[in-house]
Amino acid sequence: MKNILSTAIIFLSLNVFGQTKEDSIQFAKISTEILNNGKGYNELRDLTKNIGHRLSGSESYEKAVKWAEQKLRDAGADKVWLQEVMIPVWVRGKESLQIQTSNGKWKNLKMLSLGNSEGTGGKDVSGEIIMVRSIEEYDKLSPDQVKDKIVFFNYPFSQSYVETFRGYSDAAKYRTTAASLTAKKGGKFAIIRSLSSAFDNVPHTGAMRYSDDKKIPAVAIGNTTADELAELLQSQKVTAKLNSNCGMKGEKLSHSVIGEITGKKDKNVIVVGGHLDSWDVGEGAHDDGTGIVQSIEVLRTFKNLGIKNNHTIRVVCFANEENGVKGGVQYGKTAKENNEKHLFAIETDAGGFTPRGISLEMDNEKRKQIQSWANLFLPYGVYDFKNTYSGTDLYPLHDMGVPTAELVPDSQRYFDIHHTEEDTFEKVNRRELLLGASTLTQIIYMVDKNW
Amino acid sequence: MKNILSTAIIFLSLNVFGQTKEDSIQFAKISTEILNNGKGYNELRDLTKNIGHRLSGSESYEKAVKWAEQKLRDAGADKVWLQEVMIPVWVRGKESLQIQTSNGKWKNLKMLSLGNSEGTGGKDVSGEIIMVRSIEEYDKLSPDQVKDKIVFFNYPFSQSYVETFRGYSDAAKYRTTAASLTAKKGGKFAIIRSLSSAFDNVPHTGAMRYSDDKKIPAVAIGNTTADELAELLQSQKVTAKLNSNCGMKGEKLSHSVIGEITGKKDKNVIVVGGHLDSWDVGEGAHDDGTGIVQSIEVLRTFKNLGIKNNHTIRVVCFANEENGVKGGVQYGKTAKENNEKHLFAIETDAGGFTPRGISLEMDNEKRKQIQSWANLFLPYGVYDFKNTYSGTDLYPLHDMGVPTAELVPDSQRYFDIHHTEEDTFEKVNRRELLLGASTLTQIIYMVDKNW
Repeated sequence: MKNILSTAIIFLSLNVFGQTKEDSIQFAKISTEILNNGKGYNELRDLTKNIGHRLSGSESYEKAVKWAEQKLRDAGADKVWLQEVMIPVWVRGKESLQIQTSNGKWKNLKMLSLGNSEGTGGKDVSGEIIMVRSIEEYDKLSPDQVKDKIVFFNYPFSQSYVETFRGYSDAAKYRTTAASLTAKKGGKFAIIRSLSSAFDNVPHTGAMRYSDDKKIPAVAIGNTTADELAELLQSQKVTAKLNSNCGMKGEKLSHSVIGEITGKKDKNVIVVGGHLDSWDVGEGAHDDGTGIVQSIEVLRTFKNLGIKNNHTIRVVCFANEENGVKGGVQYGKTAKENNEKHLFAIETDAGGFTPRGISLEMDNEKRKQIQSWANLFLPYGVYDFKNTYSGTDLYPLHDMGVPTAELVPDSQRYFDIHHTEEDTFEKVNRRELLLGASTLTQIIYMVDKNW
Repeated sequence: MKNILSTAIIFLSLNVFGQTKEDSIQFAKISTEILNNGKGYNELRDLTKNIGHRLSGSESYEKAVKWAEQKLRDAGADKVWLQEVMIPVWVRGKESLQIQTSNGKWKNLKMLSLGNSEGTGGKDVSGEIIMVRSIEEYDKLSPDQVKDKIVFFNYPFSQSYVETFRGYSDAAKYRTTAASLTAKKGGKFAIIRSLSSAFDNVPHTGAMRYSDDKKIPAVAIGNTTADELAELLQSQKVTAKLNSNCGMKGEKLSHSVIGEITGKKDKNVIVVGGHLDSWDVGEGAHDDGTGIVQSIEVLRTFKNLGIKNNHTIRVVCFANEENGVKGGVQYGKTAKENNEKHLFAIETDAGGFTPRGISLEMDNEKRKQIQSWANLFLPYGVYDFKNTYSGTDLYPLHDMGVPTAELVPDSQRYFDIHHTEEDTFEKVNRRELLLGASTLTQIIYMVDKNW
C-alpha cells in the first residue's frame, strides 16, 4: 500500500502534452473534495426514492425535470434552462404471460414486455411455442413452421467476455428484432431470453424496434425462467398465452434539463451529461440516475473548489434516451442552429460503478493527447483509454465533428440489473459513484485547461 | 468496445521475459473456462448458507474444515490433508451496551465487542463517557481525567484515500490499542468508532490486542451511532453501561486444510490460499469465503483444462487468520521442518471484488519479471502491479525468503461490510468473484511455467 505512484513509470515513455505537477495537485483536490463532500449519493437517494422510475411521457419524468432544474441551481449553475423536446409516450399497462403444458394447467411466467412493443389490446393471444437458439436457426424455418406460433428466441447472454458490454452488444439484436422477425413468417408474438448476466428469474426490458408495419408483441423472461421453459420444450408441446395493454400513445412535449457555468474565456462549450429518463421498472438508479448526479457533481465541484473554467461547462440531463433518443437529437440540432462551438462532450451512462477508464471517440491527435494524461489518472484507478465508442445521446454531436467520450466504469454488475425492477438505489455504492464523478471532473478540468 | 487490445501497445516498451502468444491463448482459455464453468459462486453459497460464520474454535469452523477437505477432493486434488494447529478459542456470548443521558432514560446502542476482548463477566460496568478524537488528544489527558471513565475513541475512517485499505490501515491502531490505552490511565472500558467506510449504524468487530495484563473490554459502534453519541456529548454528560460475557477460553487443537496437484517436474511448491475461519457475525462471505473458493477454483481449472504443472500447486485454507494467525505460522513452521522449497505463494484475502492487480512482496528481479507480464493481464482488467505487501498468512513464508503476493481486488465496497453482520453471500457478485479466480490461475500458470 505504501507506493501508490511507483508504477506510474510504466507510462513515462508516453509523450506528455501539458500535464504538470499543478494538475496532479488539482486531481487530488478534486478527488478529496468529492469523496468527502460529494452530494451525489444523497441526491440519488432523493431521485430514486422520492420520484422513482421515470419513463418519458410519465408524470414522474416531469417531476424529475423539476428536480434536476432545482439540483442544478443548488449546485451553483450560472444558468439553468429547459430544452423543449417532443418525446414518444409508451405505456406498459397490465400484462401477463402464461404457459400450459401437457398436464393442462396454466402457469404464470414472470415477464416484461419489451419497451415500445405493442400489446394484445387486452385480449388473450395464444399459440404453441417453438424455440430457436439463434437467428441463424430461425432463418432456416419456413413460414409454414412459424405461422400462428409463438417464437421463443433462447439466445444466451455470453458470460465469456470480460467487458460485459460485449455480451450485451452480442445479444442486443434479439431484443430489437425478435418481433419483426417473428411477424415476417406469420408468428403471433415473440418471447426472448433477457439480456442478463444474472442467473435469476428477473426479466429485463429495453427498447425494441419494428422494421415494418406488422406490429406484434415481444416480451422478455428471466434466465432461470428461460432455462425452465427450454427444458419443458425438450419433452412436450407448450402453449403460451399473452395478454397485454402496452403500446405507443403518440407524442408529448417535454424537456431536457440544462445547467452551465460560464467560462471566463469564450463561448466554447464542454458538455457532461447523462439521461434523466429511465425504464418504467425499478428506480432507474444505475441507469441512469447515477449519471445525472455525477454530472451535477462536476459542476458543483468546479464551484466549490473555485476552479475558474476557461470554457463554458454545461451539464445536460437528456430526455428520452431509453426509447427514442429524442433529447440527444434535439440537443445536437439546437447546438447546430445556435452555431455553438462544442469542444468536447462526455456522457456517463454505464452505471455508477468504480471508474476504470474513459472511452474516446475522436480524431487520433486528440485521442493521443488525452491518452498522454493517463499517468495523472492512474492513482485514481483509471487506466483504460483504449475504447472508441461514446454515449448514445452524444452521437448527434459526434456527427457534427465534436470529440465525444464516455466514462467507463467496472461493468461486472451492470447487466445483472439493467432495465429491471432490481435497478434500485441499494445497488449503488457511495464511493464507487463518487469516484466516477471525480474522474469526470478531472477529465473536464484537463480539457478545459488545454483545449 | 471494438478494440480491446489496442492500447496493449502502451506496454510494448517493457522488457519481455518469456510471455508468448501461447500464454495469451492460455490466459483466454482460463478466463473463459472459469467465467462459464466456475463453481466458486455455488460453493460460496453452500459455505455461507449451510455453514455460515466460522470463528476459530467454533463447531462451525470444524464443519468448514470437513467442507474444504471435500471440496478439494471434488476439485481433483491429488492429495488432501489436514494440518494440525493449536488455535485460541474466543467466545462472544451475550453482550449489551446502553447509554443514559440527562433525561435519565437508558438506551441500547447497537454494538459488537472487539475480537479477543475480555467482557465484564456478565456484570454491569458503567461510568461517564469521555470522548477523544485521536490518540494524540487522548495522550494529553491525565490519569485523573480518565480514571473510572469510559473512553470513546471517535476517530473517523478517512474517505479520502482511493484505495480503502489505506483508510483501514490508518484507523486500525484504534481497534488494536484502545483497551490497553484506556486501561493504562484507569478507565473502565473503551468504545471505538468502527473501522467502516459506510454511513450506517453497523458495528465492525475485528482483532484487538492487550499490551499488558490489565485486560478491560473494548467495543465498537457503527458510524451513525458514533455521530449521535458525539452530538449528545456536546451538550451533556452521558453514562455508558456494558454487560458482556465475551472472553478467551484457552486453546484447542484444530486444522488448516491443504490440497495439491503434484508437479511433473519436481517437489517445488506454489501456494495459493485464503483463510477458512471468519469472524462470528455475518457469513464470512467476502472475508474470506471468496478467497477459499477462488483458491479451490485455481486447482480445479488446472485439472479441467489439463494444464500440466511443472511444480506442485497447493491450495492452503488457513486456520485462524482473524484472531491469531496460528494457521499461517504453523504452515511456515512445517514447511521449514520438512525442508520444502516454496517458489511462490499468493493469498486472496481482500474480498471477492473485480480484480485490479497483484501486489508483489519479493526481490526486485522477480517483481520486474512479473511486471513484465502485465500486457497479458491487461485484457482482463488487471493492470496494477505496484503494491508491495502480501497477505497476513504468508508472512511466515515471506520471512523464510519466499516471494509472496496478494490478489488486489477493487476495494471500494470492502470496508462497508468487513467484519460485520452484513458480510453475506448476497454481497458477492458471481462474475467479480470468478474473475479473481481467473487472475490467480493466470499468475500461477505463468510462475509455474517460468520459475
